[in-house]
This record gives sequence, C-alpha cells and structure tokens, in this order.
Amino acid sequence: MEKNIFGFIVFCAFLLMQNLPILALTTTSLDLMPVPQEIKVINSEGFRLDAGFSVALDGYADARLYKAATRMLRRLSGRTGLFFPQDYITAKSNPTMPQMIIKTSRIGDLVVGEDESYQLTITENQVTLKAETDIGALRGLETFLQLLSVDEKGYYFPAVVINDAPRFPWRGLLIDVSRHFMPVEVIKRNLDGMAAVKMNVFHWHLADDQGFRVECQSWPKLHELGSDGFYYTRAQIKEIIAYAANRGIRVIPEFDVPAHATSWLVAYPELGSAPGPYSLERRWGIKDPIMDPTKEFTYEFLDKFFAEMAALFPDEYFHIGGDENNGNHWNTNDHIQQFMKDNNIPDNHALQTYFNKRILQILTKYGKKMIGWDEIFQPTLPADIIIHSWRGSEALVKSAQQGYMGILSNGYYIDLIQPAEYHYRNDPIPENTSLTEEEQKRILGGEATSWGELVTYETIDSRIWPRTAAIAERLWSPQSCNGIEDMYRRLEVVSFQLEELGLTHIKNYDMMLRRLTNNHNIAALKTFVDVVEPVKRYERLLQEITYTSYSPYTRVVDAARPESMTARRFSQLVDQFIENPKAPASHELTDLLKIWENNHSFLKPIIAKSPVLQEIETMSADLQELAETGLLAVRAYRKHKRLSRKQIESARAVLEKAKKPRGQVELMVIAPIEKLVLAAISNQK
Amino acid sequence: MEKNIFGFIVFCAFLLMQNLPILALTTTSLDLMPVPQEIKVINSEGFRLDAGFSVALDGYADARLYKAATRMLRRLSGRTGLFFPQDYITAKSNPTMPQMIIKTSRIGDLVVGEDESYQLTITENQVTLKAETDIGALRGLETFLQLLSVDEKGYYFPAVVINDAPRFPWRGLLIDVSRHFMPVEVIKRNLDGMAAVKMNVFHWHLADDQGFRVECQSWPKLHELGSDGFYYTRAQIKEIIAYAANRGIRVIPEFDVPAHATSWLVAYPELGSAPGPYSLERRWGIKDPIMDPTKEFTYEFLDKFFAEMAALFPDEYFHIGGDENNGNHWNTNDHIQQFMKDNNIPDNHALQTYFNKRILQILTKYGKKMIGWDEIFQPTLPADIIIHSWRGSEALVKSAQQGYMGILSNGYYIDLIQPAEYHYRNDPIPENTSLTEEEQKRILGGEATSWGELVTYETIDSRIWPRTAAIAERLWSPQSCNGIEDMYRRLEVVSFQLEELGLTHIKNYDMMLRRLTNNHNIAALKTFVDVVEPVKRYERLLQEITYTSYSPYTRVVDAARPESMTARRFSQLVDQFIENPKAPASHELTDLLKIWENNHSFLKPIIAKSPVLQEIETMSADLQELAETGLLAVRAYRKHKRLSRKQIESARAVLEKAKKPRGQVELMVIAPIEKLVLAAISNQK
Repeated sequence: MEKNIFGFIVFCAFLLMQNLPILALTTTSLDLMPVPQEIKVINSEGFRLDAGFSVALDGYADARLYKAATRMLRRLSGRTGLFFPQDYITAKSNPTMPQMIIKTSRIGDLVVGEDESYQLTITENQVTLKAETDIGALRGLETFLQLLSVDEKGYYFPAVVINDAPRFPWRGLLIDVSRHFMPVEVIKRNLDGMAAVKMNVFHWHLADDQGFRVECQSWPKLHELGSDGFYYTRAQIKEIIAYAANRGIRVIPEFDVPAHATSWLVAYPELGSAPGPYSLERRWGIKDPIMDPTKEFTYEFLDKFFAEMAALFPDEYFHIGGDENNGNHWNTNDHIQQFMKDNNIPDNHALQTYFNKRILQILTKYGKKMIGWDEIFQPTLPADIIIHSWRGSEALVKSAQQGYMGILSNGYYIDLIQPAEYHYRNDPIPENTSLTEEEQKRILGGEATSWGELVTYETIDSRIWPRTAAIAERLWSPQSCNGIEDMYRRLEVVSFQLEELGLTHIKNYDMMLRRLTNNHNIAALKTFVDVVEPVKRYERLLQEITYTSYSPYTRVVDAARPESMTARRFSQLVDQFIENPKAPASHELTDLLKIWENNHSFLKPIIAKSPVLQEIETMSADLQELAETGLLAVRAYRKHKRLSRKQIESARAVLEKAKKPRGQVELMVIAPIEKLVLAAISNQK
Repeated sequence: MEKNIFGFIVFCAFLLMQNLPILALTTTSLDLMPVPQEIKVINSEGFRLDAGFSVALDGYADARLYKAATRMLRRLSGRTGLFFPQDYITAKSNPTMPQMIIKTSRIGDLVVGEDESYQLTITENQVTLKAETDIGALRGLETFLQLLSVDEKGYYFPAVVINDAPRFPWRGLLIDVSRHFMPVEVIKRNLDGMAAVKMNVFHWHLADDQGFRVECQSWPKLHELGSDGFYYTRAQIKEIIAYAANRGIRVIPEFDVPAHATSWLVAYPELGSAPGPYSLERRWGIKDPIMDPTKEFTYEFLDKFFAEMAALFPDEYFHIGGDENNGNHWNTNDHIQQFMKDNNIPDNHALQTYFNKRILQILTKYGKKMIGWDEIFQPTLPADIIIHSWRGSEALVKSAQQGYMGILSNGYYIDLIQPAEYHYRNDPIPENTSLTEEEQKRILGGEATSWGELVTYETIDSRIWPRTAAIAERLWSPQSCNGIEDMYRRLEVVSFQLEELGLTHIKNYDMMLRRLTNNHNIAALKTFVDVVEPVKRYERLLQEITYTSYSPYTRVVDAARPESMTARRFSQLVDQFIENPKAPASHELTDLLKIWENNHSFLKPIIAKSPVLQEIETMSADLQELAETGLLAVRAYRKHKRLSRKQIESARAVLEKAKKPRGQVELMVIAPIEKLVLAAISNQK
C-alpha cells in the first residue's frame, strides 16, 4: 500500500496528492467531498469493519444524534451487507464495548454561525468522533461514511485524524416549488443529499406567479385558488422542517413580494395594482402582476399572513424576495401615481423601498430578520438584514462595505446548466477581493438555486446533483482547495453515493430513455444522449417552443445531463493523443469514435418507432459524420499524412453543421474533434 | 399494416391472435392488461394523436374525474412529447370541440360491487368514453392510455369499441407496513400502479409484532412506543385514503387481533396474556404475545380504539386479522385457564371465537363490517362478514357453501417469489369448481399480499410489480383469458409503463447493482444477476442467516428479480433449438451461452473489490461451467456427435454442483442446460 507515505499532516490533502505519481492518486487518495480543513493520515492498517461493529454516544446527546447515528449504521450495513448487532441506537441501548464513540458537549442551535466543527479519529481499534455540538457530529458522520474503503482483506476505514469546520456558515440550496410543485418526498431526499455534503440551509421558494404552495389559515384562498391543489399542508410543512432540523439544516421560507405575485392576486385581487381578475400564470418570465404598496389593506393582509407564517417557520430569517419588479402596473395605476406624488416618492425603486420598510416592521414585530434579493438593498436598513445576491458579486461587495451581511447566488444558478467547474470556480470571496477582513466576515456564504421552470419531480434531482456537491465544497472547504480534476474525480464518487439516499439523478436517466424509445433497447439512444447537453443559460426559453407549467418535460433535452462526462473524458483523450499519439489512451479515443461512427445506424430504426425522438435525428447523423471526421484526423495525425483540401473543407462543413442545436440540445464533442482536425492539419508533412 | 384483418368482434382478443402467424401477433395485437371483456377492432385508420388533442367531460363529473382526466393528459404528453393546449381540465375549461369526450351518469361509491364498467369507442375523429360511474370512467382512462400506438406516421389509437367490466368486485393488494415501514410515497406510487391495472382495494396491514404504524389519539403509547418513530400521522392516513379514493380504490385497514400483538403490548402490557414487559419484535415468525380475551379491560381498550379508527377509515369493512394464534401465552396463564373452565370454553379456538364475537359487537356498534383471515370462520357469524383465505381455496369453498362471502389470497402470496404464471393460473373460482352459481357469487375476488419481512422501500416495488399485474388480470378479465405466453408478452409492456407512475421496480435494479459493485461497471454483475432468482417460499428465512427488521436488504438476493425473464427466454430458445437446430433462434441461444461462458472473468475482479459479492463468487464460476457444458451439448446435438462418457459425467457434475443455492439465490438456467445435455445424449449417432 502506498498510503504509508502519507504519515504527516496535510492541509487540503488532494492538493499535495496532485504531485504524486498517478498510481498513488487513484489507489490511495481519499474521496471526501467537501474536503476537510485538515487531514492527518496515520501510518497504520486502519480500522477493519466487521459484523461486530457497534456505536455508543457520550455526552449531551439528543434524539437527533441518536437518529443520525442509527441512519449511519443502516447506510453502512446497506453498502457492506454486514449484519450489525444494534437495532436503534438509543441512550438505553449504548453498548459497553463500542467500536465507535461519538462525543458531543451540547445540543446545537439552528442559527447562522452555529459551531459545526468536529474531530474524527480513526485508529486500528477505535473510531472517535468528537464535536462541540451534535450538528458538528452530524457533519462528522457524513465524513466517516465517505471514508469507507475496500482492499483485498475487506472493508476498512483508513487511519486518520480529521479536524474540520466550514469556511462559510451559510451553505444553501434554493428549491423553487412554485413553477413546478415538488412533492414532500422530493424535498426530503434533497435534504438528505444536502446533509451528505454538509449543506445547512434549505431555501424554500414557496410562492410565485405560477403557484402559492402553502396552506394558509389566515387567507385560505391563497392555497385554495392559487395552487391548482398542489400545496403543502401545515402538517407537511412541519414534517419537512423537522426532517431538515434532524439533519442540521435550517429552513428559510421565501414569500416573494411585491412582484412575482400573480398567485396571490388570483386569490385576493384586491391586493393588486391592476383591477384584475387574475388567472394563474402558466408561462415563464417576468410578469406584471404586483401588490399595491399604497393600500393599507396590503399591509393588514401581510401582517396577518406573516404572523401565521412566522409561527409556522421557526428560523430567525425570513426571505421576502423583492426581485424583478418591472413596475408596469404601478406606472399605469393613477392612484399609485398620485400616492407617489403626495409622498415625494420619486420612482418605483423608492416606492419599493417604502414597501420594504413596512414589511420589515411587520417581520420585526414577529421576531424575524429579513433577507431579500439584491433589489431590496438600500443604506438605511438595520444591520442584521441579509442581502442575497443574484445579480453579481459587485452588489455583494458593496453591501458588505456598507456594513451589511450577504450571501451569493450569482454563479450558483444550477438551473442554467453550466458545468460543475463553472460553479466551483465561483468563490463568494475571490482571492483578489478588495474587502477588508472585517468586511469579508459579512459574506456568509451562498446558495445554489434550483429555479423550477424546466424541472419536474422526475428531473429535478439530475439538475441539482451532483453539481451542487461542488458548490457545497466551495462553501465548506478551504479556498485553496480548487483542483478541477480532483474535484471531478471525487464528484463522481459522491454522485454515486447520493443514490443510497433515494436521489434519482442517475436512475431516472435510463427510465427516461426507456420511455423515449418506447421500451426498446436504450443502448444507442444512451450513446447519443451521453454526448449532448441541454442548451445553456436562458436559450431554452428563448427558442421556438413556448413552454408552460404543463408542457412535457420528458424529451431528450430533459433526459440529457447538464454536463456530459463522456464529452469531458473525450476532450481529455484528444489532448493526450495530440500530446502523444502512441499513448495507451489513444485506443480509448478511437474506440469512442468508432462507437459514434456506427451509432446512428442503430438509433435510426428506434427513432422511426418513436416520433418523440425525431427532433434529434439529424443530430444523431451529425455525430456519425463527426466521428468519421475525427477518425480521419486521428489517422492523418498519427501518420503525418496530408489531408486533401476537399477533406479539410468537408471536415469544416461537418463541424459547422453539427454546431446547430436541435431539440434544444447541443453536441459536446465538436470542439475536441475540431482540435483533432486542426492538429492533423498543422502536423502534415 | 396487418390490422385490417381484425375487422370483427373478438372476445378476449389475444386468444384468437394466438392462431395468427407470429408477424401479426407482434405487430398488431393489443397490449392491454387486464384484457377487457369485449374488444371490437374496427377496420379504420384509428385516431391520430397530435398537439391539438383536447378532452371534455359530460354528465355528472366530479373533481375526481377532472383530476383523473388531467393526469391522463399529462401522461400522454409525457410519453409523446406533444404540447397539448389544456392545462387543468375543469368544468370551466371544457373545450367546445373536444377530440375526446368522457361521459358519466353518476358519481361512484367506494363500496363492494360498485359499477366499474365502461365503454370506450375510438374512431378516426373522436374518442368517446362512457361509463355509469366516474369510477368506471377511471378504469376506461387506463385502457385508453394502454392503447397508445405508433406507426410510421406517428402516434395513434387503434379504432376499437371496448365494452368492459370486472369479473370480480374485490381486486386487492395487501401491503404490510409493520415488518418494514413504508413511507407515504411508497404507498402512493403503488396505489397508482394498482389503478393502472384496475385494482380497487388497498389492504393496509398496519400493526403486527414488529410495529404499530398509526398515530392513535385514544391510546397514544401505541405509536409512541410501538413504532420506533415510524408511523403514519392521522393527516397522512387521510392523505393516503384521499389519494386512493381519487383513483377509485378502497382502503381496508387491518388491525390484527388478538395475536401478532407484540407492538400493542409494548405500549400497553396490561392488554397481554403474559405479565410482560414486552419489547418490539425484531425477528420474523409466529410469536407468543397475545391479548388477554378474558379481561374486560381488553374490550374497553379495543372499543375506544376502534371508535377512533372507524372514524378515521371510511370504508365499510374493517380487517381484524385473527390469524396465527399459537396459544402459548393462553395455555400458561392460570387466570385464562380458569376463565375457560368457568365458561365452558373447550379450547383456544373457541376462546378466540368468544373474542371475535366481542370484537364483532364493537365493530358493528361503529358501523363497520368484519373481515378476517380463515381462522375467524365459524358458522354463527352474520352473513355480511368476509372470510379472507390465506390457507387455501378449500376454506373459501366451505365458507361460501355455508353462505359466507370470501376473498382469496392463497396463491397470491407475492412475497414468496413465485413466477407470474403461478399466480396467474390461480383462479378464485377454478373451472372445475363444485360451487353452485349462487355460491360462486360469494367469492368476491382476491388480494395479492406483499408481506414485509424481506422488503424495504427500495425493493418492495420489484416484489410487487410487474407480477401483481398478472393477478389483477386474473381478477378482472374473463376466466377464459389464460394464455401464459401472451400474458408474459403484455406483462413486459405494462411493467415498463408502470415506470411513468414513479414505481422503482426497474430502475432500482441498476441502482442496487451499482452499490454492490461499489460503482464499478455493472455489466458483468447484471449478466449474472439476470439469471438468478431469490430462493422461493420460506426458504430464505430457514437458511443459516437470521434476519431482523434492521438487517441489510441490499445484497444480490435483494437485487435479483423474483422472475428471471432471461432464464425464461433461454428456456424457450432451448426448446426451439431442440425442435429445430437450424432455426434462427439458435444464434441467440449460442450468443447467450457465450456471454455466460466469458462473464466470470469480468465479474471476478469486481468481486475482489466488493466483499459483499463474495457470497456468489462460486456461483458465478458455476455459470461459466454451465455455459461451457451447454455449448458442448449444442455442438454435439447439432452434429449428432457422440459425447464421451467423461464429458457426460463432467456435465452431470457441473449441473449438480450448480444447483446449490448460494447467497440465497439460485441459478435459473440449470434445467434448460440439462435438457440440452439430455437432447445431445439421445441424439447421438
């Protein structure tokens, strides 16, 4: 075993490992994500896992920790098939000779900045997990599970001492349940996924133009008329909050006001700035319906509303949205215009500030602190509000400099289908920051945002995972942990492990392909979809199709993963081949090209029987031509052979043609094939 | 298209089709399951589906039918990728020129024997679904979805007139949530699966030795101490009942008394026949703890309990279990023995009858009718009770003859891992029945039983589906529908369609294999697991491993499907090959054998890295030897070549060795390979 060479303290272990020979990297590096602050690898056999494994708790343990330890035991048993003796770990059932001891000093509170640190020590004979709070212990249990290893003797845990704590106290995931409602189990399994990568804030975007998703006793028409029947009951809200709390996750509700308000106005048109009636929005984009900030009824309504919701949601913070007010209905409402004149309110931004101040009063009355999107920022707010930046880090820097706390979501918009590395490189406090140390402390962290226009309960997991794990690492691990290749290596491992929590990001892929082929053999379709990605950013909404909340999200573009790992691998193989055409990887390169060369002939008859696939037929044919072009270039490059003018022209035409998105997906192997062609041309004798 | 030849009425269409050439069978036969009572296929193009498709309701439609029609539209949109114009189908949104009209006369009641008939007429221009009740319309909508077809012009529905109604009024599925708790979403997706195959009774086995799963206000310790925290809240119970009702499914709760009562006695030991204290049962089998039928407290307790549950569960029937009373704690309790003497109660059976009569009084008081397992039967019960037969159809016949209604579960124990055809052949009223027509009417139907010892939320779907669809057909379709091959053909189609409802029976297979290989390539493991099945009946519980409620159910035996379709196919190929060694199918046969011949060399290195797989290592090696033996026999048979005595002895040894189950799975290709060897021997020149 090569691991003996690791007998010293490493900070951000993988950074160091990148200097080691590749063999050591693949056989001994740890698959932790997020990477802990400090790992000491001990020169020892490690802890051998067998069916005698048992766990005891010590110190101020509560039900949360006992449950978490039991869940850990079940997951370990599930992975290894080992029959452990303990059933439910409770204060009563603590074994006298435990192999693992969990020791905590106090019960953690679900507040910003609570201690989440832990120390995990694994020796040949014992596993010890120590933490100030039980929440810290929960984080340590996830690290422990990620350490499970296998060698020729069986399952073991490497001998390590890990000291860990998060870099940022706010590591969140926003799920928009308004655009597409997400059933309770979708939320629960994503909370489990969050806990697995040590995230601690679930931002629940509960109301928007397309739906109001909470049972409301004070204003029942909100859920009765504003939800199409798809809302969480108060009991379900409590169930989810308890589920999150059991995983050390805070739940921040967002009720976006005054814009994004169609669903409220369907129920209570008297809140609106236009006469109404309103009907539930079925399409996407920024809409006009907005609350009337000049009517006292609006504040009476919201006072009663927030009183109820403040009691339902225990967190100290309440998100009021405040974004994307286009002002149209304010501009065309005479009463509002008169109010602005009478009160010296110069513009809509100032009118919204007036509204926000009234909302702030209400929230304060009910013991809540305010968080809102960029737009709410103005310099007279109290110091404990939080600015949530969706527009960019500049806004964040500015508010931090003026003394306000902030969190970042710009750059973490996972709905825009960017690669994991794009988000991973996005640091809430970049190395070249102009902020002072004091100001930097005001940057609390960030949130990945799963906006709901283009996802359903079938596809949402694949849009959140595994990429969000890279964001979780950015927010937990040291800034210096930034190796892209190693991140991707560990991301694959974590992605697979997330399945044990019920997440469907891997398994729903084949399911969707089966449906697309009408249950024919999915192999050829998979080969194709493996190398496409949905179009990026907002392109999908800007193309010819008009999407609604009830459109089918079951097409190739929905099955396709946000990031093609096959294309990524292919790109690496191309680079390696150009560097050294005789490298062993070149076989893998030509194998891939040959598969693609032949794939269309297998896929074509499937498409003929599946009209839903017709939109990608020409792209499948393009993949074949691309592969032929790639193989031509490979052969030419290898033998320094001249490509004819005609061949070059044809290659260029093939590359150009293939670039056009169809069915709103794009082929991700064009750039590397172009690279191959260029290499072949420049390499001619 | 060959379908023009079907321009006439067929009863039980596939029966007829079996006489047609194979080409017609595979391209034109309908994939309906359960098969309707009557199908008339019309000589016409059928109804072409395009993005203009819309639906209107006519008659006494209620929210249930509007919701069901909307769900149908979404499923159709999801399969085809077509963007239909309608959002939510409501009374208001009814289009003026609908392509599909649904017409019902009244709202159906959720009672035994409610009218579930429907007539579905599909012409070139219109789809018409007529039904007496909305429940009948729900059944028709499922038939409509199963009819979606594809040809070179796109999606269409074949032109048919279907008149349909169930053979039996009681078509149930029992889910045991006591042995392993099943979260709300597991129940919901299985209710969707039931609705898809027209089942109408969800039998909810809610309490047993291992757990009491309902929040109880009158006796709160039941769920507080009897469930490990895994129970349904009253709100969740109501949610599930409403979900079932929306699908035309009745919910029958079972509270098993007086035996199977450990979880009750953990909470209230004063109910027990032994002094206690009791602790929750973690193992399987028939246990001693039983309520004391001689204490008045027992009846006071149950009176209060059933009063609460009778209000919570709206169905007219209440299942009281009553099975598997071993009498041990009664026999050793002096007070009970004295009571029996004092009251001239001769034996434990009579004592249980005394108990049941008291329970019946309570149920009657709260407006409920009683249903219980075989053991409750005795001839003084009122005529509206139902006997639920788990022990055999003899008991059912006997009670029907004595005037009692009955349902059958014997033969439908899907937890015993029998093939679909085993259950399919099991008719509640066999052709040779001795019952009069009057008596036959008392046989209401049957229930598939998913007992919970060996299933978790990960595996339960694969133990229920698709086999339960075959049982659903047995209970809905005419008795004469009994072609095994055609059933299997349609079962595969239905199985795939069940995925769109969220059922995990297909997709969790790969997920479990990924975990078993520790995320290595699963191809080789899949090739192996594809040809094994878990050991049958109660063998798994009788072998060396002691299973508990917290054991890992994540091993090969849990991933393996109850019925290997690969082995089934292989067996057919062997028969075809022996019949005609030059048939095209013989290539498929040798291809399979060659894959198995080489598989172990791929699987061995995976096993080396996955200790959880070691238990099947020798069996994987056996598969290789079996394949070698099979290939030898194939070559010999084809060329009338003599097998040497040594070869024959070696083949026999290989076959014998392979028969031994390991890891509690068994290889399913042994018998056909034995057949090949015998054929080769008898075919020698």
